[in-house]
Amino acid sequence: MINTQNYFYNLPKKVKIVEVGPRDGLQNEKAIIPTSEKVALINALSDSGLTCIESASFVSPKWVPQMADASDVMNQIRRKPGVTYPALTPNMKGFEAAVAANVQEVAVFAAASESFSQKNINCSIVESLQRFEPIMQAASKAHIKVRGYISCVLGCPYEGEVSVDAVLSVVKSLKDMGCYEISLGDTIGVGTPKKVDNLLVTLKKHIDTSALAVHFHDTYGQALANIFAALLQGVQVIDSSVAGLGGCPYAKGATGNVATEDVLYLLEGLNIETGIDMQGVVQAGKMISKVIGRPPQSKAAMALLAKESTCS
Amino acid sequence: MINTQNYFYNLPKKVKIVEVGPRDGLQNEKAIIPTSEKVALINALSDSGLTCIESASFVSPKWVPQMADASDVMNQIRRKPGVTYPALTPNMKGFEAAVAANVQEVAVFAAASESFSQKNINCSIVESLQRFEPIMQAASKAHIKVRGYISCVLGCPYEGEVSVDAVLSVVKSLKDMGCYEISLGDTIGVGTPKKVDNLLVTLKKHIDTSALAVHFHDTYGQALANIFAALLQGVQVIDSSVAGLGGCPYAKGATGNVATEDVLYLLEGLNIETGIDMQGVVQAGKMISKVIGRPPQSKAAMALLAKESTCS
Repeated sequence: MINTQNYFYNLPKKVKIVEVGPRDGLQNEKAIIPTSEKVALINALSDSGLTCIESASFVSPKWVPQMADASDVMNQIRRKPGVTYPALTPNMKGFEAAVAANVQEVAVFAAASESFSQKNINCSIVESLQRFEPIMQAASKAHIKVRGYISCVLGCPYEGEVSVDAVLSVVKSLKDMGCYEISLGDTIGVGTPKKVDNLLVTLKKHIDTSALAVHFHDTYGQALANIFAALLQGVQVIDSSVAGLGGCPYAKGATGNVATEDVLYLLEGLNIETGIDMQGVVQAGKMISKVIGRPPQSKAAMALLAKESTCS
Repeated sequence: MINTQNYFYNLPKKVKIVEVGPRDGLQNEKAIIPTSEKVALINALSDSGLTCIESASFVSPKWVPQMADASDVMNQIRRKPGVTYPALTPNMKGFEAAVAANVQEVAVFAAASESFSQKNINCSIVESLQRFEPIMQAASKAHIKVRGYISCVLGCPYEGEVSVDAVLSVVKSLKDMGCYEISLGDTIGVGTPKKVDNLLVTLKKHIDTSALAVHFHDTYGQALANIFAALLQGVQVIDSSVAGLGGCPYAKGATGNVATEDVLYLLEGLNIETGIDMQGVVQAGKMISKVIGRPPQSKAAMALLAKESTCS
């Protein structure tokens, strides 16, 4: 008989949260947000103790108009020692612009599903990986770390099921190319804990858990249960978005990255250290939610703000 | 080395969902909902395959005006064979009214926190248990099953932490009095998975898991993660509320039972049988949400309804 407490034996003591709100979150907002508001958000987030804040995407403004001011954002933020401010660089043009804006960590973006790759970035998975090669080489020379994203790891809006082997293949490629961390995206939020567990059990045979991150969307309300399943497998890096900003413009009906505040509440309850001040994140979320004109998409934030307004 | 797949070895094959929307959910609505709408909701829920639908509360209309038509509701619903329609009976007066309305299962309500008991039902925990004695005796004579609820099992709005021993003590009392099932309520939604696990590990030493239910609120977004933790401990009964109806009028800021649709999505992903048709529940939730004038508080329902409107 296994001691039931053993569910938790793999739980990490410390977790790094990769805050993706200013990039993955805001890029889905139609109304253009002033650069100063983006900068204020990023500064507030870094003040809360977050140590990794994805801040911009160096992508064609034709594709993502919201990110047209990427260089301005990167130049205007107050860079805090010990905090990294990665940016997305889908191609060499983007990479060069990022370097010019003094970006010190970048990210590339692939999919585990062929159809999603075609519809999202207009090329096959293999072609997308080839496109990253020059970025990897240039980044290596410039001592810039590269993170790899994989979308649709638990399901695809066009293909449905995505096999663990398909994910593993992209994970291996990105790792071999030199990505120091691979973020596993449940882009349309269809995953459930057993699927998460199955995927991680296989991936861990090929890659160290410390090089894996989970990037879950809360489309069907499953994100925190899935994150808990990932923590049980020892995952130490979680992507989340302040106030639940964001979604996926390519997957109809897919709304909302998991909210940083809800993740923090979970981690605090599990006694997992993050170094992040919940109140700081809640206030940053309140601020940007005011700018975009809707309440924070985080239940923990809403509950804490309700308490705040009761007490004051 | 423990096989990591073993996380799931205790997972039940089948789960009973206790739908609490028509009672626990609606009782928090200020605007009185017509009896016919309540009846239509309960009928729609039973058509979806739900086998246990808490349908009314026989409580003073001064306390809960929304439940003033409890007898009418019970008399007008179309009772489906194999489906139980329990009602809350806080005292003998309520019990007698319930029996007169042909209720075949009732529920009594205690708290694990002294302060909450005082503020919620105006008596100590011990007094509340004494008050249930005549109900238990009368129910036994009439062959009516009694369920016991315990609120604040993972925290109290007035006392903060609630000890596992305090919960255990009430669980034992209710079980000894003859309750066939004990529903563990995280009334203010403050729990996280480790707390859930700790509580269940202790309770299971004293009571069979099959006699335990979990009743979680999603105030801080943790409900599904907590339910997953409970499933890992073998819990087979889950309380939930269609469209996330409800909350707790005695705990400021505590809103929302976990949504039945979100729970179903989780269970389907874990291959746990429920016998319930997701679409039927989603449509029932859509119907009642229209009546009360706000969108369903269920992410799974919102995502499925978004798909529906895209396809039609």
